[in-house]
Amino acid sequence: ARSYKITLLPGDGIGPEIMKVAKEVLKMVGKQEGMRLEFDEALVGGAAIDEYGNPLPESSLALCRNSDAVLLAAIGGYKWDNNPAHLRPERGLLGLRAGLGAFANLRPATVLPQLVDASTLKREVVEGVDIMVVRELTGGIYFGQPKGFGVNEAGERTGFNTMIYSIPEIDRIARVAFEMARKRRGKLCSVDKSNVLETSQLWRERVIEIGKEYPDVELSHMYVDNAAMQLIRAPKQFDTIVTGNIFGDILSDEASMLTGSIGMLPSASVGESGPGLFEPVHGSAPDIAGQDKANPLAQVLSAAMMLRYGLSEPVAAQRIEAAIFNVLDMGYRTGDIMSAGKTLVGCAQMGDILLESL
Amino acid sequence: ARSYKITLLPGDGIGPEIMKVAKEVLKMVGKQEGMRLEFDEALVGGAAIDEYGNPLPESSLALCRNSDAVLLAAIGGYKWDNNPAHLRPERGLLGLRAGLGAFANLRPATVLPQLVDASTLKREVVEGVDIMVVRELTGGIYFGQPKGFGVNEAGERTGFNTMIYSIPEIDRIARVAFEMARKRRGKLCSVDKSNVLETSQLWRERVIEIGKEYPDVELSHMYVDNAAMQLIRAPKQFDTIVTGNIFGDILSDEASMLTGSIGMLPSASVGESGPGLFEPVHGSAPDIAGQDKANPLAQVLSAAMMLRYGLSEPVAAQRIEAAIFNVLDMGYRTGDIMSAGKTLVGCAQMGDILLESL
Ligand SMILES: CC(C)[C@H](C(=O)O)[C@@H](O)C(=O)O
Ligand SMILES: CC(C)[C@H](C(=O)O)[C@@H](O)C(=O)O
Repeated sequence: ARSYKITLLPGDGIGPEIMKVAKEVLKMVGKQEGMRLEFDEALVGGAAIDEYGNPLPESSLALCRNSDAVLLAAIGGYKWDNNPAHLRPERGLLGLRAGLGAFANLRPATVLPQLVDASTLKREVVEGVDIMVVRELTGGIYFGQPKGFGVNEAGERTGFNTMIYSIPEIDRIARVAFEMARKRRGKLCSVDKSNVLETSQLWRERVIEIGKEYPDVELSHMYVDNAAMQLIRAPKQFDTIVTGNIFGDILSDEASMLTGSIGMLPSASVGESGPGLFEPVHGSAPDIAGQDKANPLAQVLSAAMMLRYGLSEPVAAQRIEAAIFNVLDMGYRTGDIMSAGKTLVGCAQMGDILLESL
Repeated sequence: ARSYKITLLPGDGIGPEIMKVAKEVLKMVGKQEGMRLEFDEALVGGAAIDEYGNPLPESSLALCRNSDAVLLAAIGGYKWDNNPAHLRPERGLLGLRAGLGAFANLRPATVLPQLVDASTLKREVVEGVDIMVVRELTGGIYFGQPKGFGVNEAGERTGFNTMIYSIPEIDRIARVAFEMARKRRGKLCSVDKSNVLETSQLWRERVIEIGKEYPDVELSHMYVDNAAMQLIRAPKQFDTIVTGNIFGDILSDEASMLTGSIGMLPSASVGESGPGLFEPVHGSAPDIAGQDKANPLAQVLSAAMMLRYGLSEPVAAQRIEAAIFNVLDMGYRTGDIMSAGKTLVGCAQMGDILLESL
């Protein structure tokens, strides 16, 4: 039997509750598809700060590195909000991405037919929207050197960061995006700010160059400010979007919100080799933690992305996605996606219904 | 009589058509309010590249500097899209902002009651939205040094830019924003990425510090990715937003699009002293240039912003804004904001109706 080692990182807030559901779902499809799944757990984020004084303990990273895929729930919370920078839960996440070499962040923004009305945008504008944002995740201004605090020629204190991309960094993310577009509707829009930034000029030059290897993919370019507008004006024009780390951070979140239900959105972060990292888009929602109110579906969909992109088990992934579709069709909703005439359920109950549906 | 020297920069595309309307409107309110307005014209952008081989000829900048305010229409067009970086129309705009020291960009995103349905967002979400984005305009990653192309330690070609802010740069834009919030609904949201960027950490520290001078203004902070989501999820939560150059570029455009009618949105760019620069948010729309189809209202509203923020003539500004409101109430619409049951007019005719309404 195909056998996989999966590291679970429940993290903070609602993390443990939604992870529990995802784990049960994985166990079930594992049986159905004849996969041997071995689960390990480790601490990251706030939970790891409390236990080890480190948002990413060496032991947690080592466990992740030695597994076939990493499933993360969510990290952070008010409790650690005023910590110094190196003791912030987010540092654990950034360290994990870098430590796993997970340079390609795949962020689908799909409007599900059952949830169209959850969007703040008009039905006719968002119905059928299905965008995949491919965000570069281990370079750009997030990691560029030099960065820090200094004093300028006028003797004034400054804060500074470096946005930088090298040709290989651009080429590899471009290839991931072209491959993705090819499997989707064959359209790739590269987003940059090449009318102002040299970094973007090199970005655009390389994306065009790599595009020559993909003559079947229709490539276009858009400035980031325009992309922020077009996502609202006419989101259906987009298929696959590729962009750098900070622009991708902003645009993937903007695109998510078009769906109106970020409790439904998964993400994948993958590298050239080594395990990928899979996590829901939403945060740790400390305000509802432990109350059995969380929506576990983004976490479960992240497990599906893990099966598809991390373990090459597309059939198992489809099983999960179909079950979720089915549960929504039957009218079950957690509080965040509740609407008139539907059946309100809690986190654990949603998990049970999902297992039945599977 | 109060007397003002105004430099008009019609620029490219639809620029000259819409500027003509704005000039006539200014002449009319000038008479009504007893102001002596003296107009000069200069070339910038594509038009200046064609004539002088320079998107911002020294003579144009000098004329602007010697005036009390600068009214710009729009620059750019397909014709210059493949020019080398220094011969691109946008360079003229960046040079103009820097040359005038116009560090504070004021970008209102107001949903007019007559045009609520132009938005792609649901009526109940955008009705009454009235946001002012205060964007830092002459610093940050747009101008930071070093920037350019290089080779990294691995021998790979790179492109890089520097995001940098000094304390005085942050302090002065923060003050503009707090003053603005004070005149509005007393709420200021500072947007940054301080969980990742040192530049943002200094930004947040200083905004909090300056905030102590404005105890009557309610200050909050938001990460830029969350702001991109919240603008779509619940835009009415925002009053005044302050942010750096690149985040402001993206978020002000995103906020504009909430209104659904960027043909209606003006902007102001002002400095500590010296003339301010006033321009519509929309571009030069080369596809409809010269066809009398353009919407001149954003240009006219930019003239109103010029009167208010550039010349301290709020009454004249109000006159213009009231006339536009009136013309919309009467049902006149250019093509971009046309809807069933309204009266379609061209650019020049819209100007005539506006003059009558004044
Ligand atoms: C928490 C933060 C560091 C992170 C990022 O900016 O990458 C988050 O916003 C995300 O997009 O996963
Ligand atoms: C044309 C471009 C350089 C400019 C900018 O990025 O500032 C534009 O997008 C704007 O916002 O006025």
